[in-house]
Amino acid sequence: MESVITESARDAFDRIFHPRSVAIVGVSARGNVFGTGILSALKAIGFEGRLYAVNPKGGEYNGMKIYTGLSEIPEPIDFAIIAVPAERVPQALEECRLVGVAGAEILSAGFSELGTEAGSRLEQEIRDIASRGIRVVGPNCFGIYCPLSGLTLLPGPDLSRKSGPVGFVSQSGGMSIDFAHIGKWMGIGFSKVVSFGNGADLREIELLEYLGSDPETRVIAMYIEGVKDGRRFFRVLKEVAARKPVIVNKGGLTEAGARAVESHTASMGGSKRIWEAVLRQAGAVQVGDLWEMAQTCLAFSLLPPRVYGHITVAGGGGALGVSACDEAERYGLSIPPLDPEITEAILQHLPRPGSSAKNPIDAANPFVGPQAYREVFLNAAGDPRVDVQILIQLLHHYKSLSSAMGLTSPKEVAPYRQLADGMKEVADITGKPLMLVLPDFKQGMESMDIEEMIREARGIFLDRGIPVFDDLGDCLRALGHVSRYYAVRKARGL
Amino acid sequence: MESVITESARDAFDRIFHPRSVAIVGVSARGNVFGTGILSALKAIGFEGRLYAVNPKGGEYNGMKIYTGLSEIPEPIDFAIIAVPAERVPQALEECRLVGVAGAEILSAGFSELGTEAGSRLEQEIRDIASRGIRVVGPNCFGIYCPLSGLTLLPGPDLSRKSGPVGFVSQSGGMSIDFAHIGKWMGIGFSKVVSFGNGADLREIELLEYLGSDPETRVIAMYIEGVKDGRRFFRVLKEVAARKPVIVNKGGLTEAGARAVESHTASMGGSKRIWEAVLRQAGAVQVGDLWEMAQTCLAFSLLPPRVYGHITVAGGGGALGVSACDEAERYGLSIPPLDPEITEAILQHLPRPGSSAKNPIDAANPFVGPQAYREVFLNAAGDPRVDVQILIQLLHHYKSLSSAMGLTSPKEVAPYRQLADGMKEVADITGKPLMLVLPDFKQGMESMDIEEMIREARGIFLDRGIPVFDDLGDCLRALGHVSRYYAVRKARGL
Repeated sequence: MESVITESARDAFDRIFHPRSVAIVGVSARGNVFGTGILSALKAIGFEGRLYAVNPKGGEYNGMKIYTGLSEIPEPIDFAIIAVPAERVPQALEECRLVGVAGAEILSAGFSELGTEAGSRLEQEIRDIASRGIRVVGPNCFGIYCPLSGLTLLPGPDLSRKSGPVGFVSQSGGMSIDFAHIGKWMGIGFSKVVSFGNGADLREIELLEYLGSDPETRVIAMYIEGVKDGRRFFRVLKEVAARKPVIVNKGGLTEAGARAVESHTASMGGSKRIWEAVLRQAGAVQVGDLWEMAQTCLAFSLLPPRVYGHITVAGGGGALGVSACDEAERYGLSIPPLDPEITEAILQHLPRPGSSAKNPIDAANPFVGPQAYREVFLNAAGDPRVDVQILIQLLHHYKSLSSAMGLTSPKEVAPYRQLADGMKEVADITGKPLMLVLPDFKQGMESMDIEEMIREARGIFLDRGIPVFDDLGDCLRALGHVSRYYAVRKARGL
Repeated sequence: MESVITESARDAFDRIFHPRSVAIVGVSARGNVFGTGILSALKAIGFEGRLYAVNPKGGEYNGMKIYTGLSEIPEPIDFAIIAVPAERVPQALEECRLVGVAGAEILSAGFSELGTEAGSRLEQEIRDIASRGIRVVGPNCFGIYCPLSGLTLLPGPDLSRKSGPVGFVSQSGGMSIDFAHIGKWMGIGFSKVVSFGNGADLREIELLEYLGSDPETRVIAMYIEGVKDGRRFFRVLKEVAARKPVIVNKGGLTEAGARAVESHTASMGGSKRIWEAVLRQAGAVQVGDLWEMAQTCLAFSLLPPRVYGHITVAGGGGALGVSACDEAERYGLSIPPLDPEITEAILQHLPRPGSSAKNPIDAANPFVGPQAYREVFLNAAGDPRVDVQILIQLLHHYKSLSSAMGLTSPKEVAPYRQLADGMKEVADITGKPLMLVLPDFKQGMESMDIEEMIREARGIFLDRGIPVFDDLGDCLRALGHVSRYYAVRKARGL
């Protein structure tokens, strides 16, 4: 029953995502058009294949020849990027098809999303050409990002070239570029990102099938405004979600949202309650917005695939502990009181009075060091119920410390490198993952050094495979999603 | 039926929050104790009155005489800060009472929160002394912050001296200092912040009554772990909430949360469902965490006191519009389709094709300028249903623009100053407030300049009375709280 894509379809996808040669149709000798923008972006990101500029007017751009037609290009083209005014798109696409291009992304807008007859007719022409043998991404989209080959979204000259396990399929271009940017610093590596816009040809179902069978993709995220064939989408989603986590953000679940969807990608929305039920039954993970999607992808990429029922939370600040407990319960997680012997052993490593180690573990002081936390987590992991451990670090306190010591930067005293090493060691020894929360309460102009420290620390923890969140609530919500997904799979015997 | 505090109580509060003279008991000539820390903090923040250091051992600290006892100090003392080991606190407090100090904050820990008999006994001694004629804040707290007089929390040398309408009462010290820091850059001005810890004497009820009658306080926020007299608290809360918004974050609403509360401030939690019902009936605003509390306080301080049912949302990025609609509905707000004539008028100021002005207003392009948005909002305000307008600005796009133009900083091209002026003008002309969302999708080490730009822009909008949020969802949630609070008051004829 597994949904498989045909070998010829896979061949086409391979040529699309890993093209040896790309033609950009709509590069202007004058420069200031979308086509020129995507050409510059591909050069900036270091696309691995060969690039060809095309424009019927010919000419030259930045020392690069502009071909007047695709047939003039001296080698076969795998993938084309079309960025010409809407009314000229069908002809450009047909030209691509005639010279054997495997697929094209159409960045141009001005099709069915306009709600005009002319727009719909143009889009139907695209569909007709596609059906005769060329795959199409778009129109009205931001295209394809593939870190491995160096394809990038519009406008994405500075996206990461580091590949990773997350595949993202998005009806919205804005969402695709925003998520790709967020992933870069949040520590989410992408296999492929596809913004399919109006989805005249390729859209949610086929792209989901493809990512489901793509060995480079372990986690799938989707932003959907509307689907074309609900029944088939549900079947494919259920099938893929049985093998890989599929995280879905459905936009336009309300009346006003549906209206916005219509003028955005010309899709039909669908009721909130139906969507929630469908996603739950399919075993997919539903998220409410871009940030929740990113945090959830991060947790799925870095945590071992397991059910996480019981957690410990440690940090220097009691109220954080209290709200930890309240939020954990909201996401189906529990913070069990630790065994009294373990509690006693942990207390040996914390300052007295003021600290508490019943779980949440309140270190009472923001300067409790890496060695102490190492012991705290090693001991806490001794409780067989504990599945995962979370540390909250308020790094901004190190600024006061560095000032008091006459140092210029909080980075000189904040021991996050040792902390990261210690936490990685604990995770390796105990087999129970650790997560980190780095809240930033000081975001004024005078605290740019704290922000810089937090960003550097984030990178150091991510390098050691430890996911980092700004906020405890976000961390627990993402963990809850991971846990629930694997619990459902387990219950279904998958 | 209005709850009033007596004149003598008010006198005591005045001397506590605006003391002419403060004694710090527990300053050490050697320096490294809490008492010395708070002394330095008071000097750093520029406390307006006179400071006296006290320690039975006497000596000198940083050229400042340390008195061996309060009776030695040559003038009457209004307020005392006690930071000595727990067992010596009762004696120090009694000494304060004998020389006529109006009130004392006890920063020391080691009382009932330990769960020991000795700890509870010491706290009872404090209560006994207080009942004989001195008000006490604490023990196990971070004290009082009053920007006007220059009192500050532990450790708060760098809190703002700018006074504002928000009073905050917190059982947790960590929460009080974190909120005070957040308020500084988020644009929340405080009248008074009180961390009352174990609350041996002054606690939620009396402090709420005081802030309720304090003319400097327009908005009240509370972090509560447990209350002593539920019935009286409800009565006072209902009374105060009928006059001023009271925003409550109740910690410890779950089993594990209640356990954390016990070891944190020795309070009893109470069931989630009961609390929700009580707060709703009292007409208070319930929030789930520190960030939601801060965002809600910001909205209450800057928005005119009204019911906000209908909004417009504008920005350059369609998917944001779609999720805007979905989230608005969640918070009881509606994004009505604008009148066709207004839609047409707005479209005259937006790039075509790609933009849409049915509401949400999708400008399709992140570089749509201040003049265009001015016209968009002026036109949209013409729809009588529109109560408030929200703009989403993706400032990071200006970095690409500045690079393309060969400039060194995105600040040189991002027109946020003009935008802020234009939005302020629209709000003034139309009488309908505007709110701003500044998301930051690029938070890597290489994007510190974007962060700096966003922080600067935030300050410029705040200076013009426009509240700024990181995230549209947060903005809508805060707006929903404001709207619901005034709707309840209206329904109750208050």
